[in-house]
Amino acid sequence: MELIYKGKTKDVYKLSDNQVLLKFKDDVTGVNGVFDPGANTVGLTIDGVGRSGLKMTSYFFEKLEKTGIPTHYISSDIDEVSMTVKQAKAFGKGLEVICRYRAVGSFIRRYGAYCEEGMPLDKFVEVTIKDDERGDPTISKDALVMLQVLSDEDYEKIKTLTKEICDVVKAELAQKDLELYDIKLEFGKDKETDEIILIDEISGGNMRVYQAGNYITPMELEKAFLG
Amino acid sequence: MELIYKGKTKDVYKLSDNQVLLKFKDDVTGVNGVFDPGANTVGLTIDGVGRSGLKMTSYFFEKLEKTGIPTHYISSDIDEVSMTVKQAKAFGKGLEVICRYRAVGSFIRRYGAYCEEGMPLDKFVEVTIKDDERGDPTISKDALVMLQVLSDEDYEKIKTLTKEICDVVKAELAQKDLELYDIKLEFGKDKETDEIILIDEISGGNMRVYQAGNYITPMELEKAFLG
Repeated sequence: MELIYKGKTKDVYKLSDNQVLLKFKDDVTGVNGVFDPGANTVGLTIDGVGRSGLKMTSYFFEKLEKTGIPTHYISSDIDEVSMTVKQAKAFGKGLEVICRYRAVGSFIRRYGAYCEEGMPLDKFVEVTIKDDERGDPTISKDALVMLQVLSDEDYEKIKTLTKEICDVVKAELAQKDLELYDIKLEFGKDKETDEIILIDEISGGNMRVYQAGNYITPMELEKAFLG
Repeated sequence: MELIYKGKTKDVYKLSDNQVLLKFKDDVTGVNGVFDPGANTVGLTIDGVGRSGLKMTSYFFEKLEKTGIPTHYISSDIDEVSMTVKQAKAFGKGLEVICRYRAVGSFIRRYGAYCEEGMPLDKFVEVTIKDDERGDPTISKDALVMLQVLSDEDYEKIKTLTKEICDVVKAELAQKDLELYDIKLEFGKDKETDEIILIDEISGGNMRVYQAGNYITPMELEKAFLG
């Protein structure tokens, strides 16, 4: 198989014209050995975190497909720690869409003058551009449209999809007394149909989840949720 | 007169229930002795820059009032380097509204992956919160509304006013072959009527102006523009 992209937490191999294989790695984002779903560097390596992330991702993508949300998911192979997905075109050089239910992480670092840590937020959606060099800056709809990264219509579609997806994830977690504080999604356009679809993964690696006010690490989350 | 606020470039004195006096100082924002209208520290002191800023501000506020734009301006006293204005209530702890005609300053630092330095922008408006400690972060309409800093309606009103005001300033400068690249405005609510009004100043201190591709300092700008 031809390796077409080496990511921080996943490698991407070409399968056919419109399909790729994602190989989940045991690396997670963070800084100085501390996990941070908002970081853009690999902070640490944890044995089994790739498989754990794949199990969570498969669970959520299958659940989302059933509710009619379009995703890139085709199938997964837990033993091989890999997932077969539809190939997607990125928006610009890649966007991350964050949905926040409580004020933590970079939100409180930016807007701490107007909120307390942990304050409930009304399903707040914001977009950042993937740009390691410039620290993944936030970007407004107006700027995305002006710089021709996204159309106004696509922005609104992504915002609506994000709220629908995150509400599904939040409700699923709540069934195990787990509370979703924030989560980061990625979208692309299906290479074949041009439809906007959810891509990447949904796992402990891209969300902050708490239980009874205590933060749960990605590995603990998978055990508490699936195990 | 009672000093009610000591700002970086202006001090504010109480005059009556609904009026205050702004005393322009010879300090300009910047870093390490270099002027930067986007900075939130005093970078240097220049003899006469306060009077120069007041002359520009008086000119533009009088011009804007004639075009029907509501501002806090009442009168100015060039000899005393002071301006009498209507008292206004800030939005939250204060907002800055930036209008960009070309990609320079923090815009290029954030979105350089999608534009070249100096690239024309379509009258792009963005808002930052005044928060020295957190580096004046940009904030979206959704966040401003959710954090109850601004209503959706007030945001749209301010965005529309900003474009109207900046087009007036840009056209005025163009008459002297000066090109406006970007500018920072402030708004408040008239303490008496609750109307949204333009406050603070309009001078070289809060805009970037170029002539034949060369940056013009605030003092040079006043000479080139007012003669």
